[in-house]
Amino acid sequence: MNLVLLERSEADGCGEWGDITLDGVRGRHIAGILNARPGRQIRIGIIDGPRGVATLVSTVNETVTLRCAFETSIPTVPRVDPLMALPRPKVLRRLWAQLAAVGVGRIILTNAERVERHYFDTHVVTPDCYRPLLIEGLQQARDTRLPQVSVHRRFKVLVEDELEALFPGRLRLVADPSASLSIARAVSARDAGTAPEGRRVLLAIGPEGGWNDFERGLLEGHGFTTVGLGSRTLRTDTACIALLALVHESLRASGSGPGAGASEA
Amino acid sequence: MNLVLLERSEADGCGEWGDITLDGVRGRHIAGILNARPGRQIRIGIIDGPRGVATLVSTVNETVTLRCAFETSIPTVPRVDPLMALPRPKVLRRLWAQLAAVGVGRIILTNAERVERHYFDTHVVTPDCYRPLLIEGLQQARDTRLPQVSVHRRFKVLVEDELEALFPGRLRLVADPSASLSIARAVSARDAGTAPEGRRVLLAIGPEGGWNDFERGLLEGHGFTTVGLGSRTLRTDTACIALLALVHESLRASGSGPGAGASEA
Repeated sequence: MNLVLLERSEADGCGEWGDITLDGVRGRHIAGILNARPGRQIRIGIIDGPRGVATLVSTVNETVTLRCAFETSIPTVPRVDPLMALPRPKVLRRLWAQLAAVGVGRIILTNAERVERHYFDTHVVTPDCYRPLLIEGLQQARDTRLPQVSVHRRFKVLVEDELEALFPGRLRLVADPSASLSIARAVSARDAGTAPEGRRVLLAIGPEGGWNDFERGLLEGHGFTTVGLGSRTLRTDTACIALLALVHESLRASGSGPGAGASEA
Repeated sequence: MNLVLLERSEADGCGEWGDITLDGVRGRHIAGILNARPGRQIRIGIIDGPRGVATLVSTVNETVTLRCAFETSIPTVPRVDPLMALPRPKVLRRLWAQLAAVGVGRIILTNAERVERHYFDTHVVTPDCYRPLLIEGLQQARDTRLPQVSVHRRFKVLVEDELEALFPGRLRLVADPSASLSIARAVSARDAGTAPEGRRVLLAIGPEGGWNDFERGLLEGHGFTTVGLGSRTLRTDTACIALLALVHESLRASGSGPGAGASEA
C-alpha cells in the first residue's frame, strides 16, 4: 500500500481540522506495517479525487486518526481502455489489481468464440469481487482513478452498436501475434494530427487461442488496426501487462503520457 | 502447451524413423486436451535445440507415439538478461513461467538491502522447482531456449567482480521510477554503433521498495544507465513483465529483435 485510499463519503466526513479515523485493514496497515508514530506523514487519496498527505494524530490499538490535506488537482484518467475477451475466472482474479496498477480508464469485458459461457456467471465479474482488487492496484500505483468496468455479453452488438458512443474518436488497436506493425508506430502515426486530450487508445485483447476470423474481421471493419508483440504466444495475463506497458510508453513518447496534474472530469 | 518440449536425451533415443513415445503430462495433453487422432501434426521442440513437427502415429490410453522431424536451425537466445533482487518466494514462483514466456537469456538473482535473507533458503530457488516452470513458459511461447539461472548472494561481489565475465559488453540498464530516460531511447542510442549480434541488454530490477542509495550508486558506477517506466509504482512481477516487454520491443525496433532462425550456440 503506497498510498491509502479513502472513499468519498469518508473524506466528506472529515471534521474542521480535516481529521479522519480509520480502522480495519487500513488502520492495521498504518499502525502495524508502517509502524507509524504520531507526526508521521502518510500518502493518501480519495477515490476519483485528489491525492494528499495525512499526518498521523493518534493510534489506539489498530484505529488511527489522520489529519488530511489534499491537492487541488485530480490525477488524469489513464489513457488506455482494454477491451478484453473475458479471461478465465482464475486469471481475471489475478488481473484486476494489475490492470489498475498499470493504469486503465475503462475495462470492457466481452464474449468471443473461445470464451466459455459460464465465465460470465462467476463472482469474479461482480463489483463485490473486483472493486477491492482494483483499489488494491491503485494503492500500489499511487493512483486514485478507479477504472470503470462494463460487461458486454454480445460481442457483435458491442462492436457494431455500442463502441462509438463509449469511445468516440479513439485510436483502436487489436493485438495479434502475426502482425508486424508495432504499437509505437501505430500510436505515433495517429498522434501526428491529434490534440493531446484526444490521444486515448482502445486496445482489444483476445482470448487464449486468439479472436476467430469473424471477430478479427469485425474489429478491423470497425477501425481497429492490428498490432503485434513479436512472435511469442503469451498467456492472457502476461500479454495484457506487456501490451498495456507498450501503449503507455508509446503515449509517453508521443508527449501525451498520463502525467499527474491536470484535472479531467 | 503450444509446443511440446522434449529433453535432449529423449530426442537422442528416437528410432530410425524418428519415433518417440511420450506418456505422463505430455502424453495426457496430446491424447486428451488436443484430442489428437493418428496423422495429426503437433509442434514439438528439443530443449536448447531445434523446433519441429511431429506426426501422431498412435495413441494407447495416455501413451502416444510421435514421428518427429526437426528444423535445421536453433532459435536464438532471447536478448535480455534480467538481474533481479530476489523476489518473495510466492512472487518468484509465479514469475518463473512468465519470464521464460516473455523471453530471457539468463536470470541472475541477487541480494539487496530490502531482500529478506530467508528467501534464499526456499525451495523456489532450486532447479527442482524452477526448471519445470521455465519449461512450461517455453512451451507457452513456442521457444526451446531454457533460461540459465544463477543465484548470487553477495550483490557487491557480483557487480564488482563477476558481471563483466558473465555479460561482456552488454548494454546495462537499471529501472527506477524517478528516471525520465525511456528504455527505447537508451537502447536506440547504444545500438547506433553496435553490430546486431552484440545487441543484448542486462536489465537490473530492484526489490519491492527499490534499490537503496548504495546499491543504485554501485550499479551506476559499473555502467548501468537508469531508465524509467513512468511514475506508477508496480509490484515486482508486474514491473518485470512490463520492463522486459519494453526492452524486447526496443530491440525489435532497432532491427535486432529475437527473431527465429539463425543458430546461436
